[in-house]
Amino acid sequence: MIDTRFFNHKGSLTISQIAEICDAEVITTGKDDILINDINTMFDAQDGEICFFYDRKKKAAGAEIRATACVTTPELASLVADGVIILTTNSPKVAALKLKEAMYEERKPQSKIADTAKIHPSAQIGEGVSIADYVVIGANVIVGKNTVIEPFAVVSDGCVIGDNCRLGAHCSVAYTIMGNNCYIYNGARIGQDGFGFETINGVHKRIPQLGRVIMGNDIEVGSCSCIDRGALGDTIIGDGCRIDNLVQIAHNDKMGRGCIVVAQTGIAGSCNFGDYVVCGGQTGFADHLNIGSGVQVAAQSGVMRDIEPGNVVMGTPCVPFKDYMRQVSFLQKNSKK
Amino acid sequence: MIDTRFFNHKGSLTISQIAEICDAEVITTGKDDILINDINTMFDAQDGEICFFYDRKKKAAGAEIRATACVTTPELASLVADGVIILTTNSPKVAALKLKEAMYEERKPQSKIADTAKIHPSAQIGEGVSIADYVVIGANVIVGKNTVIEPFAVVSDGCVIGDNCRLGAHCSVAYTIMGNNCYIYNGARIGQDGFGFETINGVHKRIPQLGRVIMGNDIEVGSCSCIDRGALGDTIIGDGCRIDNLVQIAHNDKMGRGCIVVAQTGIAGSCNFGDYVVCGGQTGFADHLNIGSGVQVAAQSGVMRDIEPGNVVMGTPCVPFKDYMRQVSFLQKNSKK
Amino acid sequence: MIDTRFFNHKGSLTISQIAEICDAEVITTGKDDILINDINTMFDAQDGEICFFYDRKKKAAGAEIRATACVTTPELASLVADGVIILTTNSPKVAALKLKEAMYEERKPQSKIADTAKIHPSAQIGEGVSIADYVVIGANVIVGKNTVIEPFAVVSDGCVIGDNCRLGAHCSVAYTIMGNNCYIYNGARIGQDGFGFETINGVHKRIPQLGRVIMGNDIEVGSCSCIDRGALGDTIIGDGCRIDNLVQIAHNDKMGRGCIVVAQTGIAGSCNFGDYVVCGGQTGFADHLNIGSGVQVAAQSGVMRDIEPGNVVMGTPCVPFKDYMRQVSFLQKNSKK
Repeated sequence: MIDTRFFNHKGSLTISQIAEICDAEVITTGKDDILINDINTMFDAQDGEICFFYDRKKKAAGAEIRATACVTTPELASLVADGVIILTTNSPKVAALKLKEAMYEERKPQSKIADTAKIHPSAQIGEGVSIADYVVIGANVIVGKNTVIEPFAVVSDGCVIGDNCRLGAHCSVAYTIMGNNCYIYNGARIGQDGFGFETINGVHKRIPQLGRVIMGNDIEVGSCSCIDRGALGDTIIGDGCRIDNLVQIAHNDKMGRGCIVVAQTGIAGSCNFGDYVVCGGQTGFADHLNIGSGVQVAAQSGVMRDIEPGNVVMGTPCVPFKDYMRQVSFLQKNSKK
Repeated sequence: MIDTRFFNHKGSLTISQIAEICDAEVITTGKDDILINDINTMFDAQDGEICFFYDRKKKAAGAEIRATACVTTPELASLVADGVIILTTNSPKVAALKLKEAMYEERKPQSKIADTAKIHPSAQIGEGVSIADYVVIGANVIVGKNTVIEPFAVVSDGCVIGDNCRLGAHCSVAYTIMGNNCYIYNGARIGQDGFGFETINGVHKRIPQLGRVIMGNDIEVGSCSCIDRGALGDTIIGDGCRIDNLVQIAHNDKMGRGCIVVAQTGIAGSCNFGDYVVCGGQTGFADHLNIGSGVQVAAQSGVMRDIEPGNVVMGTPCVPFKDYMRQVSFLQKNSKK
Repeated sequence: MIDTRFFNHKGSLTISQIAEICDAEVITTGKDDILINDINTMFDAQDGEICFFYDRKKKAAGAEIRATACVTTPELASLVADGVIILTTNSPKVAALKLKEAMYEERKPQSKIADTAKIHPSAQIGEGVSIADYVVIGANVIVGKNTVIEPFAVVSDGCVIGDNCRLGAHCSVAYTIMGNNCYIYNGARIGQDGFGFETINGVHKRIPQLGRVIMGNDIEVGSCSCIDRGALGDTIIGDGCRIDNLVQIAHNDKMGRGCIVVAQTGIAGSCNFGDYVVCGGQTGFADHLNIGSGVQVAAQSGVMRDIEPGNVVMGTPCVPFKDYMRQVSFLQKNSKK
């Protein structure tokens, strides 16, 4: 049961409505008009609720389902407990996403600019924008339509923020040109100085960081993640990238479209990523690397060299996945002698 | 010497008072009425001060102690410099904790609600609560008695905060039900969206995150640590957990009682931890793992599989501690050939 | 081309002016009065711009330079495209730093104290200080001359902040004595409680943290980095240290002068670092270690033992660099059999 203190329930749906939303086939006949009130996990769903069953590792739990209805795959359908109304689809995860959207509404603050927001007179604020209490917006900032800015966010002088963005509480955005539909989570840090200095007679002298952060459309940057601006030239994040929490992206990194960067990954400066690169959690990249499109780097790996497109690598220093597994097995076997 | 700009000294104590507070035995006779003014490290303590000596690696330094008194173990007592008043106990660390509490008072802000705090009229604020300048509290929030909320903290709509909690500066708490006596440090992020999406035709479509964060009693969450709310079902943190700084806890993780999570650890989604699990710094956990009660994971380890209760593991992928040591020794030995 | 929405261009410079600023020799004759308007990367620089060429890995790109002028080394000068005005120096990186400073001005907010800043009446604020909107400064705080404090920063009771410091947006500073010329980036956390507790009958009882953070002069602390105060005695950061983003420095760590700590490094409590220690990204240190001056620890390494001055180490557990390379090569070779 979803907690309606936090999420707005839009209303119950019949099995046939759900089948349409989920693009699923109703296997159990004669139940099309049964009403489903809520969504829940396959373990917790009760009477009146629907669940989703697609995890093959949890096959045995299918028989324990107590929901009124269950969306599953044709393959797993036979494992669902008797009496549960079954719907099937080849994409139960997508179905779950769609049903969640259909049954619950994301709360969005009213379009309104709080009196306590400090907005420089030269800033241009688009239609439908919501600016919460205690937001600071600098000179010449441009904010696109319908963007939501949460309490204590800071957007520094000269930044451009696109339409339909969301800047979370306590985030800071500086020296940044951001596209549309970007979601910056609470406490993310975008555009601060990169970590650059020259050591002259034992003094680490800061190198002026004269670049920017250029962000495409449809990007997410997680809580407490940091994206430093370029030293000369820009740090660039491509359309559709998903950056998790506590990630470090250094100056002059460039990411293509759709890259996925899991939590606590660190990417040193001047790396070039292709499209749809996937970085597992806590991975690290040395500086100035070229990482080809479609590369997948397993969690905790350390990348010290360029990687050709499409490779799947693991370990520190990372090697192809199969080689890593061989290394692990060799070491485990031989060290026991 | 403790800096009284920061800490309130409650007054000096005699050796016999200290013995009682520390549950220690005074070994040196005839000194019960000597007055001790302050606590210090064994290296820095001077006349009028007391120190604690229990680190066996620092045995040699015992002879250098210049404090007026020293609390140590019966075993180490003979190593303390001549002329120092000696007290012994089997738990000198606990004794130090108690004496610190007895001699110094933690400053607590006055119970007062700042004019600049933006508190939604529907929020319920308990007795004795202290709300600092520039705090934002959303609709229907409930804050328990004697809780302290520091500047720029944000508590979003619908959250429940227990009694005697402390929400640090710049923290954000959303979609969260929190018990009593929890301490959220500055800049911690609780309850934001988990990192969940389905890739449909090359677009990473966000999965609505409809769960919550449920926190028990007596929990600490360190600075800049992130706890994402559940996707469906909740992220759960058990009573007495201690989470250090810069930790990532993903959606739907569940922790039992008393777990200790050292800095920069990352736990991927849907893990189940038993009670009193200990994670060293920078450890990483793959998703959907079951980690038994009492498991200890050494720093920087990578956990990819379930771990049975009570095991002590190390390495990436982690193995039992002894096996890890064998691997290290095998590799160091053989690679030199 | 530098984006003048963000950076103030001070004016164009002639080749001979640039040669003087950069301490470089003009190789191409008869061009001393040519005017250079801007700085750019060697790949992007166009007519009217100058670039810097010193990366030996990019030798081939020298012939593609389209800038009006190029600062390079005597060694690389012959590789620069025909028609480009060449200046040489043995330190092109230093030259770039100087020219950036000469051509662009760092924007500094006006010396002004915002009406919305909450400054305790007992605080002493030096001349020329700039305090932005929504800053909170506690009792008895001392802020030195010309320091800049950005929105939402919190400086807690009793702290001392030196001259010419910059405290970034959303940073928190508590229990701290800070020298001059320190730059604390957005969202950094300084002085909170260390992660210290004693487990008594299954309860993790917090140990009062009665120390401070003592910072020297000319220190940088990156975004979302955390420096905990001492438990008894202080956490100490020496002059000239450079700490990147998302770094964890635990209670009672002591760093000498000029240490460089790259992003996401974690240092457990009570470590003693000498001078000019370099920690690559994501390195980890166990507690109570002595790390000698000039030690260099490669990225992602795990340090479990003391390291003598001047050593270069790598791996987990870390070993001398050459040994690490031997281990990697041994493992890669033998696991393929």
